[in-house]
Amino acid sequence: MRLSRYFLPILKETPKEAEIVSHRLMLRAGMIRQQSAGIYAWLPLGHRVLNKIQRIVEEEQNRSGAVQLLMPTIQPADLWRESGRYDAYGKEMLRIEDRHEREMLFGPTNEEMITDIFRSYVRSYKDLPLNLYHIQWKFRDEVRPRFGVMRGREFLMKDAYSFDLDKERSTEAYRRMFVAYLRTFARMGLTAIPMKADTGPIGGDLSHEFIVLASTGESEVFLDKDILDLPIPGEDTDFDGDLSGIIEQWTTPYAATDEMHDEAAFGAVAEDKKVSARGIEVGHIFHFGTKYSEPMGAKVMTAEGKEVPVQMGSYGIGVSRLLGAIIEACHDDDGIIWPKEVAPFHVGLINMKAGSECDEVCESVYAELEKAGVEVLYDDRKTSAGQKFASMDLIGLPYQLVVGPRGLKTGEVEVKDRATGDREMLTPEAAVNKLISALKG
Amino acid sequence: MRLSRYFLPILKETPKEAEIVSHRLMLRAGMIRQQSAGIYAWLPLGHRVLNKIQRIVEEEQNRSGAVQLLMPTIQPADLWRESGRYDAYGKEMLRIEDRHEREMLFGPTNEEMITDIFRSYVRSYKDLPLNLYHIQWKFRDEVRPRFGVMRGREFLMKDAYSFDLDKERSTEAYRRMFVAYLRTFARMGLTAIPMKADTGPIGGDLSHEFIVLASTGESEVFLDKDILDLPIPGEDTDFDGDLSGIIEQWTTPYAATDEMHDEAAFGAVAEDKKVSARGIEVGHIFHFGTKYSEPMGAKVMTAEGKEVPVQMGSYGIGVSRLLGAIIEACHDDDGIIWPKEVAPFHVGLINMKAGSECDEVCESVYAELEKAGVEVLYDDRKTSAGQKFASMDLIGLPYQLVVGPRGLKTGEVEVKDRATGDREMLTPEAAVNKLISALKG
Repeated sequence: MRLSRYFLPILKETPKEAEIVSHRLMLRAGMIRQQSAGIYAWLPLGHRVLNKIQRIVEEEQNRSGAVQLLMPTIQPADLWRESGRYDAYGKEMLRIEDRHEREMLFGPTNEEMITDIFRSYVRSYKDLPLNLYHIQWKFRDEVRPRFGVMRGREFLMKDAYSFDLDKERSTEAYRRMFVAYLRTFARMGLTAIPMKADTGPIGGDLSHEFIVLASTGESEVFLDKDILDLPIPGEDTDFDGDLSGIIEQWTTPYAATDEMHDEAAFGAVAEDKKVSARGIEVGHIFHFGTKYSEPMGAKVMTAEGKEVPVQMGSYGIGVSRLLGAIIEACHDDDGIIWPKEVAPFHVGLINMKAGSECDEVCESVYAELEKAGVEVLYDDRKTSAGQKFASMDLIGLPYQLVVGPRGLKTGEVEVKDRATGDREMLTPEAAVNKLISALKG
Repeated sequence: MRLSRYFLPILKETPKEAEIVSHRLMLRAGMIRQQSAGIYAWLPLGHRVLNKIQRIVEEEQNRSGAVQLLMPTIQPADLWRESGRYDAYGKEMLRIEDRHEREMLFGPTNEEMITDIFRSYVRSYKDLPLNLYHIQWKFRDEVRPRFGVMRGREFLMKDAYSFDLDKERSTEAYRRMFVAYLRTFARMGLTAIPMKADTGPIGGDLSHEFIVLASTGESEVFLDKDILDLPIPGEDTDFDGDLSGIIEQWTTPYAATDEMHDEAAFGAVAEDKKVSARGIEVGHIFHFGTKYSEPMGAKVMTAEGKEVPVQMGSYGIGVSRLLGAIIEACHDDDGIIWPKEVAPFHVGLINMKAGSECDEVCESVYAELEKAGVEVLYDDRKTSAGQKFASMDLIGLPYQLVVGPRGLKTGEVEVKDRATGDREMLTPEAAVNKLISALKG
């Protein structure tokens, strides 16, 4: 993408309203714009990252056997009366009346609707297990939205819902999601730690939060640092097999948010392994059994011909919130440092003197990189080199490729690694090869 | 995808509420489920098609130089007061009050919001031309939603907005979208004809609708059948070049909806070339100049240092509606006949006797096709062969690959072309090669 044809409105000033670094950087890097309190437009750069995060979530959900569908944003109030949550939800629910004065709402979550879909089609144990997920915009009318996309009102969430015949199989479904989550966050370059959690308004008896460590995190967390070194389950994980070993491995070292913190248990952790830190919740999984299937009449026939309410769980990932969490975990004083897998582009190509002999070299490396599937943002504008460097550092693409008149005198261009700051002078050909092998190898 | 692990709730009965064939077939094929009047859940099969249509729209928008972003669904009422449309829009607008009693609405379209984004960042002619688009759920509170996704209340739309310095450049932006639309619909297997249109509530002085011919279409259309044979602009179209020749070619033969029909002009068409038919609107493009930029103060500085309101156009495609339009145009008595590019899967693999020697052959062709990037829906269930055939015809994948005990006696499987009904007995190896070359060649 040529920057001269893109829409990347970088802000020079630090916006006053931004209290945390991810919010500040997303505004400055032209990724988002607030349209109302807690409601954001995703400008092109932000939208690209949102899409990449969504793709990773989808790939890992699909790998674990979940099936994607898409439920609407607007729901009828009556469904929520069936579960008893319509009144319970309070003012966070955005309630709407349509032109025929029917009571509707902008869905904050979808337990009721998916249970409704399930009960209208599924009758037999033969159709189980089933795990249905979607990625859709939700709305929660927070009394005081803040921290940018970390606590917005309109937000993108992945929510999956499992349906099983009995508690044991439902626990297996829970384990599949647990493992899928470990893979999902790791692929985004994050260390996300599962912690036993309170079930809150969703209900149920088994629940974990996935927490990313960041000094600006909303909650205090306590953990045994052994958990930081555990291996992430591989691509070849057999999701039809027994996953209990992985779960045990990940739930044995102490890890808890302040809500669930147990001083005595934490006391038993070796002194040099105790970590207390701050964290950001990026996922939350629940097993809640028949909490919704019972009142809503979602039943299946067992092999013995008996009707039983289906066992359910739900599994959320804060897709839009993840952008904020990743930036909180990956930035420096100059700006964002995107992990490769979620970077909006892989390489920022800087033409230090547009309109000079630099153009030809830039065009050639641009074409070669794009041909190899490397996503390049080419700064071909006639602005100062200093401004170009600052913008590229701010938006945080993994590599910068700098083409300037001085380097070209000896036939060289510069490759800069945004994360380490390492710079190297190479021929254009060697630079292209280096970037292709680093990014596509 | 193995059907035993998928969620494809086929209905045996024809739902009474469905008045038109696409609505009937989408319900029967388990593609959608109505959650409230005019509000649908997209079940897995429907969601896959929706995604494929969306990808084609994105690819062609990007090719033409438009840049993708994503605006939120909920908008503040005040923006619409600036343009004067808040009161003008009437009951079709879903109006919402949030917990702080601020007036909001679920966006039915985004001219106001994109103008607001533009004016907050762009100041100079140097940043033009710019065309920003998004694909987002919209809401129009139709008094009587009907025809399934063809006239729903919550619907997915692609809307692009162009910004240019003057009328001439704005006309060029309009032409780029015109050509992108010709390519977009053709890639979906549709014949969509541009017809001069009324500008309606969007305003402006230049507008075309893109109409798909189908006997169940909502409006009557009149055309010179020469237009049906015009070539679609190729992938190599130069969107920076002069597109006026293509536009002239496509706007010369007579083509008009009843609203814009001119009996005298139609009378001049040769008798044997006159076509009167019915059509479905799938896209609508508008040039409206300064209708929004003027009242909303979206101005740019010219090279001469003069401030002028920016020239705008907007360009819609009914993404969710396209599913209905494609089915209206592509079906027979047995079900849907998906064009290859938008089919939810490419091949339906039918195991006529699960649990027999058929399994091994099925597993092997399934693995080989998937490896080649062919998307296979494998019916591995233990249900009757008759039911499997009927379901596959109903959901309309381009090819069926049938593995049965009788054929296997002579080492053969059957390949059926859903559109033509042609059947061929081949060795499994030859069948796989035939499908790969037909679908990926």
